[in-house]
Amino acid sequence: MAAMLSMSAGFAEEWLPLPANSPVPDDNPQTATRIELGKQLFFDPRFSSTGTVSCNSCHNLMSGGDDSRATSIGVHGLAGPRNAPTVWNAAFHSVQFWDGRAASLEEQAKGPVVAQVEMGMRSLDDAISRVRRIPGYVDQFRQIFGGDNPVSVDNAARAVAAFERTLITPGSAYDRYVMGDKTAMSEQQQRGMKRFNALGCTGCHRPPAFTGPWLPGGFFVTFPFHDSPYVAKYKLRDDMGREAVTGKPEDRHKYRVPTLRNVALTAPYFHNGGVATLNEAVQVMAASQLGIKLDTGESADIVAFLNTLTGPFPEIALPRLPPTPGESVIPVN
Amino acid sequence: MAAMLSMSAGFAEEWLPLPANSPVPDDNPQTATRIELGKQLFFDPRFSSTGTVSCNSCHNLMSGGDDSRATSIGVHGLAGPRNAPTVWNAAFHSVQFWDGRAASLEEQAKGPVVAQVEMGMRSLDDAISRVRRIPGYVDQFRQIFGGDNPVSVDNAARAVAAFERTLITPGSAYDRYVMGDKTAMSEQQQRGMKRFNALGCTGCHRPPAFTGPWLPGGFFVTFPFHDSPYVAKYKLRDDMGREAVTGKPEDRHKYRVPTLRNVALTAPYFHNGGVATLNEAVQVMAASQLGIKLDTGESADIVAFLNTLTGPFPEIALPRLPPTPGESVIPVN
Repeated sequence: MAAMLSMSAGFAEEWLPLPANSPVPDDNPQTATRIELGKQLFFDPRFSSTGTVSCNSCHNLMSGGDDSRATSIGVHGLAGPRNAPTVWNAAFHSVQFWDGRAASLEEQAKGPVVAQVEMGMRSLDDAISRVRRIPGYVDQFRQIFGGDNPVSVDNAARAVAAFERTLITPGSAYDRYVMGDKTAMSEQQQRGMKRFNALGCTGCHRPPAFTGPWLPGGFFVTFPFHDSPYVAKYKLRDDMGREAVTGKPEDRHKYRVPTLRNVALTAPYFHNGGVATLNEAVQVMAASQLGIKLDTGESADIVAFLNTLTGPFPEIALPRLPPTPGESVIPVN
Repeated sequence: MAAMLSMSAGFAEEWLPLPANSPVPDDNPQTATRIELGKQLFFDPRFSSTGTVSCNSCHNLMSGGDDSRATSIGVHGLAGPRNAPTVWNAAFHSVQFWDGRAASLEEQAKGPVVAQVEMGMRSLDDAISRVRRIPGYVDQFRQIFGGDNPVSVDNAARAVAAFERTLITPGSAYDRYVMGDKTAMSEQQQRGMKRFNALGCTGCHRPPAFTGPWLPGGFFVTFPFHDSPYVAKYKLRDDMGREAVTGKPEDRHKYRVPTLRNVALTAPYFHNGGVATLNEAVQVMAASQLGIKLDTGESADIVAFLNTLTGPFPEIALPRLPPTPGESVIPVN
């Protein structure tokens, strides 16, 4: 049961704990076999041009679901323009990517495979033709999806999305606190929580996932909204944001509001990963979105609160990737 | 109990199954905490210059303990000169690397961290200074190793080696067969086994690990020994082999004999990864080392036998990599 806290100037009407399950679309049920196939595909580097990059390379499930880097590196050492968003709790976002250009996890999963600075395949057809050469995958696709063309790009994306919907972290210190365990958060963390709400952070980062609200078309906010010295220092306006997707000037510098779940594990911060620490990121947000400057104690309290949104992480067994005995699907030359 | 098989022209005096445990040096005992630490380090990409390459990147435990590539790719998209040897059963090799330049797994573990085409750190000191910034590692090193300087390069290498000594695959079809289960191998596989021995393959690839014999200085063989069209076709003599380590002309084109355990999962083949399929690799070995040509049926039988040396693989839980909340050890710029 979620606690109702009285907050004079706040926005969070209800401090909800993260649900035990994430939203699931009707056309992609969470079956055990689908999840297991998706897990194998998620960890398999053979669907990158060089055989070196998997989903997990930039969305590392052994840590914060990202890559500890400012911007990600894909095949051939190429760096992309943006910071890898965490895959943990991505299922609670109504749209995917920083600019919200994918409406679902299924749609998102196809992007990096053919991005030339990520997995670098020439086409999704090339990628799925590698899958078709691996008997252990073909068997699973047949059994799970059936039909005339079970080994398809859409079905691969469905499997990966099903696996990603299991990558959620209910039961954090915050969750336990709002469910009634008043020992789960320290005094400082509780102070930070109240401050986070009183300042208006919850206006965009709403419980339980501390994302924007779930809207079919996505919920987008201009960042940075206010001018500050941070804009130049961290090059915060070099990226056009959602305008590059829609072509509309009113979408300039607009971004989907990212979840703050596990934010302490996803440094460095923001769309370009330009800000090294969480404490500095909190200061940048206060200046850029609220037009205020926090004193040291205030930002420390908020950082302490944000740390209550970390984990716990489900145990995951390393998958066995189905083999092609006696040969490799990666070309020798 | 190992089966004694009568072999008229063979070398394998005894068809030994792989032991349940690998050899362990006196100064690095296999404790649970040491193995667990080594596993975290093995999977942690933060000890490469870019934060993108871990031991597991090229020695993937989800598959054949290698990377499905001809030669490996490290940081900045740089390719090394040699094929990644499998880490599965590496503990049964008396020396490490293709040229045997490391006398132990401990010594081997340090090499790739500072190889500029692999993990690309400037020095081992740089790498260990990153480890020292991660509290969850510091605690483990202290508890496991104690002393004045617990977080050291040598101790990190010990932990990784301890983990690697658990990466063994007893219980394959071959192992079950020689331990008495006569249904574990097909007729063709049994035929291939006899042929493998009768041809003399066991002279170098000896049971139980199908490596060279365990010699303190290593066991090295010239490859290719005989001339054949394969030498030019696959550039088999472009690499100087062990001569590059010792400077001695008599070590030219000499290599440590690699294990054939799981060889069906480690295509492409040889020190330069130039040969795409296991069947072709068997033909190349027959020509290069025995000076003979196998007919199609003979090589197919041997390939069938080699497939009995695959797996089974231990279940491994994905490690949690200790965090640095609110910051990353990878520099932003």
